[in-house]
Amino acid sequence: MKNFKFIIILFLLTLIVSPVNAETTVSAEVGFIFNTFLFLVCGFLVMFMAAGFAMLESGMVTSKSVSVICAKNIGLFSIAGIMFWLFGYNLAYGIPEGGFIGKFIPWSDQSSLDTGYADGSDWYFQMVFCATTCSIVSGTLAERIKLWPFFLFAAVLSGIIYPIVMGWQWGGGWLATIGFSDFAGSTLVHSTGGAAALAGALLLGSRTGRFTRSGGLVPMKPFAASSIPLVTLGVFVLWLGWFGFNGGSQLSMGTFDDAVAVSKIFINTNLAACGGVLAAGLVTRLFSKRTDVIQMLNGAIGGLVAITAEPLMPSPIVAILIGAVGGIIVVFGTKLLFKLQIDDVVGAIPAHLFAGIWGTLAVPITNTNASFGTQLIGVLSINIFVFAISYIVWFVMKNTMGIRLSKEAEKLGTDVVETGVIAYAIRD
Amino acid sequence: MKNFKFIIILFLLTLIVSPVNAETTVSAEVGFIFNTFLFLVCGFLVMFMAAGFAMLESGMVTSKSVSVICAKNIGLFSIAGIMFWLFGYNLAYGIPEGGFIGKFIPWSDQSSLDTGYADGSDWYFQMVFCATTCSIVSGTLAERIKLWPFFLFAAVLSGIIYPIVMGWQWGGGWLATIGFSDFAGSTLVHSTGGAAALAGALLLGSRTGRFTRSGGLVPMKPFAASSIPLVTLGVFVLWLGWFGFNGGSQLSMGTFDDAVAVSKIFINTNLAACGGVLAAGLVTRLFSKRTDVIQMLNGAIGGLVAITAEPLMPSPIVAILIGAVGGIIVVFGTKLLFKLQIDDVVGAIPAHLFAGIWGTLAVPITNTNASFGTQLIGVLSINIFVFAISYIVWFVMKNTMGIRLSKEAEKLGTDVVETGVIAYAIRD
Amino acid sequence: MKNFKFIIILFLLTLIVSPVNAETTVSAEVGFIFNTFLFLVCGFLVMFMAAGFAMLESGMVTSKSVSVICAKNIGLFSIAGIMFWLFGYNLAYGIPEGGFIGKFIPWSDQSSLDTGYADGSDWYFQMVFCATTCSIVSGTLAERIKLWPFFLFAAVLSGIIYPIVMGWQWGGGWLATIGFSDFAGSTLVHSTGGAAALAGALLLGSRTGRFTRSGGLVPMKPFAASSIPLVTLGVFVLWLGWFGFNGGSQLSMGTFDDAVAVSKIFINTNLAACGGVLAAGLVTRLFSKRTDVIQMLNGAIGGLVAITAEPLMPSPIVAILIGAVGGIIVVFGTKLLFKLQIDDVVGAIPAHLFAGIWGTLAVPITNTNASFGTQLIGVLSINIFVFAISYIVWFVMKNTMGIRLSKEAEKLGTDVVETGVIAYAIRD
Repeated sequence: MKNFKFIIILFLLTLIVSPVNAETTVSAEVGFIFNTFLFLVCGFLVMFMAAGFAMLESGMVTSKSVSVICAKNIGLFSIAGIMFWLFGYNLAYGIPEGGFIGKFIPWSDQSSLDTGYADGSDWYFQMVFCATTCSIVSGTLAERIKLWPFFLFAAVLSGIIYPIVMGWQWGGGWLATIGFSDFAGSTLVHSTGGAAALAGALLLGSRTGRFTRSGGLVPMKPFAASSIPLVTLGVFVLWLGWFGFNGGSQLSMGTFDDAVAVSKIFINTNLAACGGVLAAGLVTRLFSKRTDVIQMLNGAIGGLVAITAEPLMPSPIVAILIGAVGGIIVVFGTKLLFKLQIDDVVGAIPAHLFAGIWGTLAVPITNTNASFGTQLIGVLSINIFVFAISYIVWFVMKNTMGIRLSKEAEKLGTDVVETGVIAYAIRD
Repeated sequence: MKNFKFIIILFLLTLIVSPVNAETTVSAEVGFIFNTFLFLVCGFLVMFMAAGFAMLESGMVTSKSVSVICAKNIGLFSIAGIMFWLFGYNLAYGIPEGGFIGKFIPWSDQSSLDTGYADGSDWYFQMVFCATTCSIVSGTLAERIKLWPFFLFAAVLSGIIYPIVMGWQWGGGWLATIGFSDFAGSTLVHSTGGAAALAGALLLGSRTGRFTRSGGLVPMKPFAASSIPLVTLGVFVLWLGWFGFNGGSQLSMGTFDDAVAVSKIFINTNLAACGGVLAAGLVTRLFSKRTDVIQMLNGAIGGLVAITAEPLMPSPIVAILIGAVGGIIVVFGTKLLFKLQIDDVVGAIPAHLFAGIWGTLAVPITNTNASFGTQLIGVLSINIFVFAISYIVWFVMKNTMGIRLSKEAEKLGTDVVETGVIAYAIRD
Repeated sequence: MKNFKFIIILFLLTLIVSPVNAETTVSAEVGFIFNTFLFLVCGFLVMFMAAGFAMLESGMVTSKSVSVICAKNIGLFSIAGIMFWLFGYNLAYGIPEGGFIGKFIPWSDQSSLDTGYADGSDWYFQMVFCATTCSIVSGTLAERIKLWPFFLFAAVLSGIIYPIVMGWQWGGGWLATIGFSDFAGSTLVHSTGGAAALAGALLLGSRTGRFTRSGGLVPMKPFAASSIPLVTLGVFVLWLGWFGFNGGSQLSMGTFDDAVAVSKIFINTNLAACGGVLAAGLVTRLFSKRTDVIQMLNGAIGGLVAITAEPLMPSPIVAILIGAVGGIIVVFGTKLLFKLQIDDVVGAIPAHLFAGIWGTLAVPITNTNASFGTQLIGVLSINIFVFAISYIVWFVMKNTMGIRLSKEAEKLGTDVVETGVIAYAIRD
């Protein structure tokens, strides 16, 4: 009978212990599903950023170059999708530890319960990041670049250049080994896109008549943005997508800690964008009589890019400040490019390259695992590498197939010449 | 050996019992993740409503005031985001039980497994509600209000006025104590926005030339909406966002019952919008020869606002009817404002204030826990409070910094004067 | 004491066994929530496709018929929502096994843990599919059809025609019994919409002046698309929605296998769209000097429709090819309709009907459970049935209330005549 009591106690103990497990554990399969769900949901948000870029750029170019911008955006997203399957994924993730480059083999599904998420959901999530990098380039070069050479560059960028630098860090390559920190890609995605755009803009030259010989800026009128509401829509869509961009970069949602982290990331992402908008708006209001709506909108992007390198660690107030500096960088970066007579039609270089550098260098402020020196190495190595390779690719294309439309074509407008479709056929 | 048999039986029992548990229980951590996921997903849908309002309003104003509307919408969303962190959340949720106002302290993350969801995900979800309240105001006052005074009002509304009334009900304040019922905010969010807009519209006056002296309405032409497709896009985006708005207000997704409830809410939300569209369309078709597309679109909003106070209890047919009445209220409410010569550029007062009152008073029809008397107390107290405080704030601003643009500025268009950026630069 | 040891062993065994369960099982309730979540998330993505169609069609029609297209799209979505509740759902799912038609009774919530998902979430998901079918019709018939007769047809299509064919397959009717395979509705949804549109287009005739008497096509100019960026936005929104359309058609997300399957579906859906865009773009570039942006955009739709019948089984390269053929079909299908002088304003017939046929017939290439013969039976029976019934409905309406606007009305533009609201009131 002693045994009997003991058995009863053990039975009750077992019952108590197993519900306790049930209270606090997430099974591997449930965790797998949560993680996969996170990638898919955040992935479709980032996918939608392609629409955001298309609207932002459609609104920012003059009304003679809108159809081509649309063709570029739908085309580059398609090219990036295929290239990232064909080369990109395994160039990045097939990299040896601490290495430089992975393997030129197509992606194939390797899902198992041990990996913690469906392999395909990760591919999808990484693919839309790759497409984002390409989207950044298309706006800067608008109104004067030839369509198909642009597509060729998009293929190289999405299939080779971006995957290589992606592998350096997220594939566990040499930058990861030395301790570089770039949570969701201020440098890997945004500066990469911006640096590739800058290389193109330098080789392509500015739109005819954009700058005066004496160095001044031609009054806005002939280069006026075709539709401010479309720019606004684009920015709101990008802002929405950024919750996926940064939130999904937590890479898991299957534990208490992950759920709390993803929520913090949403908040910091939002607050940084708020800071960017208001800082840019205030600065333009103080420096001129007008509140420049375009700078407010681009300020949102600047703030979002800036927080992307570290959206988890900052407190709310620090997130606001990091974003605000991003917004201010956009305003003055735009002025700087004007001064240098570099023609960036949509302001992508200030918003993505400059604010990306700032955000990445600002990581050590809140993340004690990061050091300023290592961040600087990462920023320099990626930006110089991307700029140099892009410059070479653009240069070779310029001197073979040509990358710039003729002056007559530019005058007629890229829409008429390249797509044969005018963008706005509005009659009373 | 008796014991031995007994042990075997116990062992089998244990095995049986623990899988049974596994069949029917959701562990606390899994529930925590589901709830957090619900807040984040529904939250980003509501966040996107900011884009919906921006498009709706951009399309509804004349083409001379579109850039400023864009600036207002991106700006107010940024201001609301910061203010709701700085004051709002704890003004609402820091309220004593049955009390009137919470604490002026910034939000900080208090997540624990016991709260059932990541604190940050709740902040995010509540913040986008706060921003929605502000978005409602911006359209009504378009084309004649100064930009920065509007931003100042947005800060007061999002940081103080809205959080106070929010606390009365959702923070467990005095309205919650007496049994007021407003599931997702027909009154708390929508009427609050509408009442604040009405106060502003009365003090601001109508657009120059909008009404004739004899009380008639100036023919539509000079005040024609700039882009109907953008209005349509805006309404579809709001409709989409409303699934998050109402669905997320279930506040949990971690049980069978919650999953069923959220699904019912999605359905009723959709059917009410359908009812609103068709009722508004039919009414305009019957009363004039035309089917007024703007009233159909605003009818969707009216239907959605009406169902928001109680999207769970109605049967489908009742949801359709509640929405249909909301749509009809929009049509006749718009006529009423015309008669009263109150200039509501986008029709936000009928759609949000009037339909919100209807929806809140209609709760007792399907929810037996609500009484008409208490609903009336809630509707009156919130609307009078918000209107009065808003009136005071607008009044003080009017007599200090001024809230209205000069007649010359209005003639030139707010875009040229305030942002220096014309909205549509479209050339053949 | 023997017993004692034995008890300890059993206790440990129990502890080991129950965590193992916890590792690999998803409880019924957790699975229920995941499945419901999948339906709701994918459902709102598909709901948003209504906005995509509205933008695509607004952009494709001439600027005199945009307000009416907006009214049609918001109206049909409302009608479909109500009809699918009133008749549709139980016409489809109330079908006897292997049968032809279900019951004319409204939907009501039958959720139980055994069904595996909230009944309402399934209704919502199926309802947005029904609405999609209607959306396909509205564009083809634009610029000359009367508004309310169109609404009447939308009610018949969403309440009766679509639910009947839906029941044949997804309700377990006769097509399901013989082994027809249409995963997410290349034929059931897209061809159904396309066939109904074709019947209408034949009876309605082409827009006045669209085709020359000698059979040529009148130069594009007077029929130019009103806004290419809105078309582009529409296509991106549809592309986004298609992840929900195809992904949600897995119908469950509560296991490892489902999570992997939904991820594969996302990838194949994306790659097929990529293939469609690039194939259509390349073909137009090769056959003319221009890269036709409209064909690239419609090529995306063609690729998406083509993969919809079987988005799970294809390898990535096969998905790209299936989509590419879909894109090419769009280009040549558009030419074919021109030749036949069938006026499809937005190209919905090539993109939805023709590409849907292709996609359905291509299923056996990758799905060994499908046979070409059965696929052909399904394609023929559904398309002939839908075309015939639609033709009869259009015919009866034509000869009673009339379906076509007068020539004067067409000249003035449908916007002025039907809604009294011009779509773009843009002034300098």
